Amino acid sequence: MKEPVAVIGLGNMGFPMARNLLAAGFPLAVHNRTRAKAEPLAAGGAAVAASAAEAAERARIVITMLADDQAIDDVVFGERGLLAGMKPGAIHVGMSTVEPATSRRLAVAHRAQGSEYLAAPVFGRPEVAAEAKLYVIAAGPPGPLETALPVLRALSRGVSRVGDDPSRANLVKLAGNFLLASMLETLAEAFALVEKAGLDRLAVLETLNGALFASPVYQTNGERMSRGAFSPPGFQLALGLKDIRLVLRTADQLGVPMPVAGVAYDHFLSAASRGRGGLDWTAVSEVVREAAGLAPAWGSSTSDPINVR
Amino acid sequence: MKEPVAVIGLGNMGFPMARNLLAAGFPLAVHNRTRAKAEPLAAGGAAVAASAAEAAERARIVITMLADDQAIDDVVFGERGLLAGMKPGAIHVGMSTVEPATSRRLAVAHRAQGSEYLAAPVFGRPEVAAEAKLYVIAAGPPGPLETALPVLRALSRGVSRVGDDPSRANLVKLAGNFLLASMLETLAEAFALVEKAGLDRLAVLETLNGALFASPVYQTNGERMSRGAFSPPGFQLALGLKDIRLVLRTADQLGVPMPVAGVAYDHFLSAASRGRGGLDWTAVSEVVREAAGLAPAWGSSTSDPINVR
Amino acid sequence: MKEPVAVIGLGNMGFPMARNLLAAGFPLAVHNRTRAKAEPLAAGGAAVAASAAEAAERARIVITMLADDQAIDDVVFGERGLLAGMKPGAIHVGMSTVEPATSRRLAVAHRAQGSEYLAAPVFGRPEVAAEAKLYVIAAGPPGPLETALPVLRALSRGVSRVGDDPSRANLVKLAGNFLLASMLETLAEAFALVEKAGLDRLAVLETLNGALFASPVYQTNGERMSRGAFSPPGFQLALGLKDIRLVLRTADQLGVPMPVAGVAYDHFLSAASRGRGGLDWTAVSEVVREAAGLAPAWGSSTSDPINVR
Amino acid sequence: MKEPVAVIGLGNMGFPMARNLLAAGFPLAVHNRTRAKAEPLAAGGAAVAASAAEAAERARIVITMLADDQAIDDVVFGERGLLAGMKPGAIHVGMSTVEPATSRRLAVAHRAQGSEYLAAPVFGRPEVAAEAKLYVIAAGPPGPLETALPVLRALSRGVSRVGDDPSRANLVKLAGNFLLASMLETLAEAFALVEKAGLDRLAVLETLNGALFASPVYQTNGERMSRGAFSPPGFQLALGLKDIRLVLRTADQLGVPMPVAGVAYDHFLSAASRGRGGLDWTAVSEVVREAAGLAPAWGSSTSDPINVR
Repeated sequence: MKEPVAVIGLGNMGFPMARNLLAAGFPLAVHNRTRAKAEPLAAGGAAVAASAAEAAERARIVITMLADDQAIDDVVFGERGLLAGMKPGAIHVGMSTVEPATSRRLAVAHRAQGSEYLAAPVFGRPEVAAEAKLYVIAAGPPGPLETALPVLRALSRGVSRVGDDPSRANLVKLAGNFLLASMLETLAEAFALVEKAGLDRLAVLETLNGALFASPVYQTNGERMSRGAFSPPGFQLALGLKDIRLVLRTADQLGVPMPVAGVAYDHFLSAASRGRGGLDWTAVSEVVREAAGLAPAWGSSTSDPINVR
Repeated sequence: MKEPVAVIGLGNMGFPMARNLLAAGFPLAVHNRTRAKAEPLAAGGAAVAASAAEAAERARIVITMLADDQAIDDVVFGERGLLAGMKPGAIHVGMSTVEPATSRRLAVAHRAQGSEYLAAPVFGRPEVAAEAKLYVIAAGPPGPLETALPVLRALSRGVSRVGDDPSRANLVKLAGNFLLASMLETLAEAFALVEKAGLDRLAVLETLNGALFASPVYQTNGERMSRGAFSPPGFQLALGLKDIRLVLRTADQLGVPMPVAGVAYDHFLSAASRGRGGLDWTAVSEVVREAAGLAPAWGSSTSDPINVR
Repeated sequence: MKEPVAVIGLGNMGFPMARNLLAAGFPLAVHNRTRAKAEPLAAGGAAVAASAAEAAERARIVITMLADDQAIDDVVFGERGLLAGMKPGAIHVGMSTVEPATSRRLAVAHRAQGSEYLAAPVFGRPEVAAEAKLYVIAAGPPGPLETALPVLRALSRGVSRVGDDPSRANLVKLAGNFLLASMLETLAEAFALVEKAGLDRLAVLETLNGALFASPVYQTNGERMSRGAFSPPGFQLALGLKDIRLVLRTADQLGVPMPVAGVAYDHFLSAASRGRGGLDWTAVSEVVREAAGLAPAWGSSTSDPINVR
Repeated sequence: MKEPVAVIGLGNMGFPMARNLLAAGFPLAVHNRTRAKAEPLAAGGAAVAASAAEAAERARIVITMLADDQAIDDVVFGERGLLAGMKPGAIHVGMSTVEPATSRRLAVAHRAQGSEYLAAPVFGRPEVAAEAKLYVIAAGPPGPLETALPVLRALSRGVSRVGDDPSRANLVKLAGNFLLASMLETLAEAFALVEKAGLDRLAVLETLNGALFASPVYQTNGERMSRGAFSPPGFQLALGLKDIRLVLRTADQLGVPMPVAGVAYDHFLSAASRGRGGLDWTAVSEVVREAAGLAPAWGSSTSDPINVR
């Protein structure tokens, strides 16, 4: 028998995840700030809750998939929030990318009222979420984690458990995002070098990935970057910038200088400052190309000079 | 029928390469500054030449595998040097990691006297060379390259051709070394972050490489780094520093700022300045760890404060 | 006739400032979390208030000189806080180094209840405060600023007015602290260069400051740095780190990449991570020297590995 | 009685220096690659030599003021070069900004043939040279330095002696240029910060220089930068880039990581890559402004995308 699940936050990621849980046969309640997003799920049998509290009341396992740390705080601690609805023994699974410190605060709050908290951030873009092929980094107390595992498996191609302290999952997720962002910055620099010498970037990528990394992540991102296919975005540059901020803030608390994170941050911030935050994050290459005296090819997409925050 | 080959430079790389060519049935002449290195090959049938010129006289294809750009210049242009011995139509295959500018100079010199020049730098450490599993990046005029191909294949698991201009192979090789060095620096920063939070670095590596990169290069180097297995070195940090210098010098000529190369350079230079240039280049992690307030674990290996050049 | 003044926060800076106001004849109320600090001022005629509210009630001009943004928030918005005591038309002069965003919040809060807010952060160390030779950067509405001017003049050798929006004063102050911190980092790099070549750092400083900058700030700090006179501190490294964090956070909100701020931050953070946050901020030189393979000379001072926050 | 002097290299700096020596009554021989430059001096009584050797033959003290290390090598070691003409006991005073290593080579060459070598690089732009107000950093053996001192004094407002080894003067000069270039980069970052917040850069400069540095160098350069007065240049950005390269090369040899030099280098290189090398070096601000999303104001000056070397 499957545990009843709630999904709070039906954005690019949360929506396909909820649909997959429905398809997998989990009794499902959903809640989203704008209700319209929930309608297609209601048609498939999901209960649409008017508040986070109401969604939480209906579930043993409550997933949140929200934009940022602030949104989590609002949903959890706000009026008719998640905490107000969760039953004793119910499990909150925070799947957004947030600071470790946020998870520590949530764990304390749940412990105080008898509910449980797990962190289970994911790697994978919306189309990967739709295929139920996310990769989950999970941490939290073993009992609740065992209970939540079938739900996480229904969403993913793999689940790594990284300890009993939920905040560890957030740290590992941030470390992964740092490795990815740095790889993009590094590829951008290598590409600028070979492009200015007249070589074809994609050919160089294929040679070097074949000779060295043999990594699909290098291949996919390098291809996108060398083709300038920045729109529509796979992963928005502005979100990448947000994640590097979380990396740097966490590193600050731990006393760890991370100069490569600093370089990537400067370039992502520069792209966002010029109104390119809505492009795919591989577009960081254009900041690097421009610095090398090449004409940036941001693509036809002209966005407003977005707020860099 | 196999073309006669000469190998000049019988160091960690050149020696196993020569042995493999012998095993593959190529008529072989060898030359090394210190003759003793050549003896085991003589026993296997190689002719030992007293000078680069003499080695070159005996071969259609003359491979050089030397320490750096300066060594190449000495061997090629010096008295009884390679140029003095090469017959019209003979092919010099430069397999060391050198600046593109060096290849351009060599190409001009060969053209002037009727011989040919190819650049064919390789990825792979000495043990990989011993297994004939190097990866070759080759560039040069198509005819000579065709002629040299059986020789390159006898040394490698793959040959990528990147154009008619030999210097392109050097540029692609340097771009690859830059990607590797940056990956090490990036891993070192990510490791310092998770280590200070109390996580096990190797476990984090395996999680993130499994979830994201699926790359043997991340796995092997990350493992070595997290275990602190810096001695004996697979690839010396001092050689890595030399390669980053070549990257930065080439980028300077092309007008390409490469800030991540700068960060990696600073840390490799710092390690060399403290007498750690003889360790494996993954030891760059200890510079990063120390900056984060962790006690560096350079290993028992105490080397002289080596010359940083 | 002199306006009655309150000083809240009697630390290294606030105490000598309060004493100078007393000496200048201003009717004075003071408040400090630990009352003992206020006693010597009481002896001189100051009224000692039990709360920020009580101090504010007694004054037309209320100065705060507190550790950080958080301390300000506590004192202003807390129970029996400054806001609760201020009379209509009274003027709060925030003299700590805080984020522009903090000043913006304070200005809104004061406007809402009919009191006024000025920001007037200062340059100068405690001994400079004792001599009433601070340099004040002031901003806020002209009327209140005129009213507060005699008070600011009694504390300083100069007052610069930088606009009607109080947050501008904080921004200019942060820009100044950034220039100072960067100068220290830059001097440290130049010193490491000449020291490794065997030159005397102090002699080089005097030559270059004489030839180029002719600046007492270069002279004083360069002298301290080259002598390794890090303890007792003139300005604590940990406070310098705090200020660079404010610079970077403000730059983030404005969308301005500041890579030199990033370099200085990394080195200050590294020093703090190793338990050197209690030294003078010129000790950043030792991080730079160590990276260059020189033995760091932190001085006899061993402090606890302090919290880097 | 005044010693006979030769000046080799009559560019922006060498020409006014020669004129001042003539005015001061030194018997003068001059040599320049293009003879036309020498004509006005001939009219004033200078002997115009057809070669460096001929100029050297006529003088006790031979000044070189040339573009770079390569030019020095050509003039000194070339056919009819300086070395060929110098009499035993004559003194070569190298006044260009070159690597310490170049001075070491020159010192060896002179010693071998019985002549003397001093390094005496200068701070100051052409208009300062014209006023005989350069600042000289001199090093070399005491005897020859005493002999040369009246000549150096005739060109300058001050002479600092920094040791017996000539290369030390070059190192101190490079350290000074590094401090200047870093100050420009740092000012550019501070300016971008305050400009994006809507403040007037020049007003902020004046406030902060008044409050802190009290330095004419900050004032002059900051003013030029904030006004965007990049053309005609006071000191060409391309020459600044050359000097930072010398700093980084020297630091490499000494094993000193200098990350702020790296940041300045990246930005100067970027400006040169975009064809702005002919502007004043304060134009590095426009690279920083563009990264912050501000429209760069390079000025009307459109130059060819110059060679970045």
